[in-house]
Amino acid sequence: MSEACAARRERLRERCAAAGAAAALVSRPANIRYLTGTAPEGAVLLLAGAATGSKHPDVLYCVEQPGADGGEVRLDDQLRVRALPASGGDPAVAAAEAVAEAGTGSLAVEEHHLTVARHRAVASVAPRTRLADLGSAVEQQRLIKDEEEISALRIAAEIADQALGELLESILVGRTERHLALELERRLVDHGADGRAFPTSVGTGPNSGRPGHRPTDRRVEEGDFLSVRLGASYHGYRCEIGRTFVIGTSPADWQIELYDLVFAAQRAGREALVPGRACREVDHAARQVLDSAGYTEGLAASTGHGVGLEIGEDPQLAPSAMGKLDACVPVTVEPGVHLPGRGGVRIDDTLVVRPEADGGPELLTITTKELLAL
Amino acid sequence: MSEACAARRERLRERCAAAGAAAALVSRPANIRYLTGTAPEGAVLLLAGAATGSKHPDVLYCVEQPGADGGEVRLDDQLRVRALPASGGDPAVAAAEAVAEAGTGSLAVEEHHLTVARHRAVASVAPRTRLADLGSAVEQQRLIKDEEEISALRIAAEIADQALGELLESILVGRTERHLALELERRLVDHGADGRAFPTSVGTGPNSGRPGHRPTDRRVEEGDFLSVRLGASYHGYRCEIGRTFVIGTSPADWQIELYDLVFAAQRAGREALVPGRACREVDHAARQVLDSAGYTEGLAASTGHGVGLEIGEDPQLAPSAMGKLDACVPVTVEPGVHLPGRGGVRIDDTLVVRPEADGGPELLTITTKELLAL
Repeated sequence: MSEACAARRERLRERCAAAGAAAALVSRPANIRYLTGTAPEGAVLLLAGAATGSKHPDVLYCVEQPGADGGEVRLDDQLRVRALPASGGDPAVAAAEAVAEAGTGSLAVEEHHLTVARHRAVASVAPRTRLADLGSAVEQQRLIKDEEEISALRIAAEIADQALGELLESILVGRTERHLALELERRLVDHGADGRAFPTSVGTGPNSGRPGHRPTDRRVEEGDFLSVRLGASYHGYRCEIGRTFVIGTSPADWQIELYDLVFAAQRAGREALVPGRACREVDHAARQVLDSAGYTEGLAASTGHGVGLEIGEDPQLAPSAMGKLDACVPVTVEPGVHLPGRGGVRIDDTLVVRPEADGGPELLTITTKELLAL
Repeated sequence: MSEACAARRERLRERCAAAGAAAALVSRPANIRYLTGTAPEGAVLLLAGAATGSKHPDVLYCVEQPGADGGEVRLDDQLRVRALPASGGDPAVAAAEAVAEAGTGSLAVEEHHLTVARHRAVASVAPRTRLADLGSAVEQQRLIKDEEEISALRIAAEIADQALGELLESILVGRTERHLALELERRLVDHGADGRAFPTSVGTGPNSGRPGHRPTDRRVEEGDFLSVRLGASYHGYRCEIGRTFVIGTSPADWQIELYDLVFAAQRAGREALVPGRACREVDHAARQVLDSAGYTEGLAASTGHGVGLEIGEDPQLAPSAMGKLDACVPVTVEPGVHLPGRGGVRIDDTLVVRPEADGGPELLTITTKELLAL
């Protein structure tokens, strides 16, 4: 891990050097974790010597945690940690002071993460340093995952599959959406997750299939659609799975039809996951199945997105998305339809884009997508 | 609620007018919730007509949620909602475009929340509008709570007390920190919380009393200190309670001594909660009890903080804190001592500052602070 992190910082350093920035200040937590293996709250990473080839090590500036167990953090040799006293102010400002002292000419910062006020504070302690924009250089580096990252995602997906599988074996009728969601989250942790990847969504009856639905006190009833969306975080890596079930012995005709349609859309999206394919084409593949059945209104803005250290990473699978898929990029495919007042269906998998020679897209979330009547 | 929100916006409008800003763009979610009663993800609030006395209504710009249930959001008459299509970009930019169209001369933005990149995007669509800094005007308004807010905090505290009380009645030995934390969070929701106010901390044995400790797989053992810190969120308002217990029939002498010391420090902090008292004096009152017993190393940076729509609000009770306490300000008092390798004690209450004529500080978290042997 620490070697991988050192290599990632080296790549970023080269990129900064090419852009003429002598040093870089990384403040976005997921980016810091990617580059160092850890991300204490409020920490910033100062990537040194980008253009100058200086021998200063990279430094993680963080706030001292009294009673914190130093053993939690494993860092590599080329990275130093500087813990400021808890009342010592913003680590970004401390990093900028070090840059100013070293006389570094320019410093690239994450303008999409740093607030205007922090940017001003950084500038004020380093008045002779030119502040540049690092842009989303680290996010771009994070797009394609190495096998260690994919392995963490694979375990996260296994955990989510297990939690979901156990829930399906229990009695569901009469339980509330909130309780089912909490039960799932407990099981994620039981099976070794760091925690949930995002707030678990459980929708019953008219709430089923609603994107972003937050669990309510509505109880599961006979005849309901039940839609569930959950994910585990494992070593910081987040996966996502969503399934829709029907409660009772036999689904109604409209339920079967709607399920088959969303299933077809989701399959079309999965099959479009080919290296080199435009992201918007993947979205189109799934979306047009729903479109041509007349469900044009009320569809979500995207039918999938990248996952990794964050749950909503690039690439976006959406009509206006730019860019193409690469191999080793994990994404979700999650089309859905919601009929106001009746409910709906959403099917959501996490997959890794792989070339056809390697067997095509690797499905991480393997819970069945048959329409189960529970 | 909606009347209270309209009145809050009116106060902010007057403040903006006094500062010469014609309109204000509020982007920080807790501030938006305070001013409107709701805060859809990514929404911004455009507070209109600050200096001009214009009759434009305030507008909440948000992103359309397909399948979202419009009935969840109750807004007042003077507030309009403009839902942008999901692919319609940043609501802050849409709001700035409206400002530019209306020819508004100046717009105050939250520079401590808006990123450099978003600020630039806002400026670029409104080139003739002067962007000013709203600063923490809304946060300052949020400091003193009205009785409706305090009532929500009181219920949040009751819920946390109930969840903790139930846990104490169960068998604890042999259970892991993670499980106890999840159990507590489940009970919070059982008793009507929106959810947890912050990640629940459970520390056993050497982990007890560590500030910010994240639950591990360590199991509760005989003779352990067990420290628990949890909070409920109710209608968005967040409280906090922390207690330390001892496992087994009789605490060791060092445990009793340490507990008594932290209890004395916490009581001193509580008793210092008087309107008009400097925040740093409250911190000093608690801290000096620990200091004079020789525990100067490794104390947390603050011994308490405000609570409300966020868990770590102003005021801070810390050595370097500025400002004084006002009546109707809810704060935590939470000193603690952690002895590396042995464990420690932390006692944490949420209280509302009240004048002595009204009976002094109002204790919201009423679980006993006797040293219980469980």
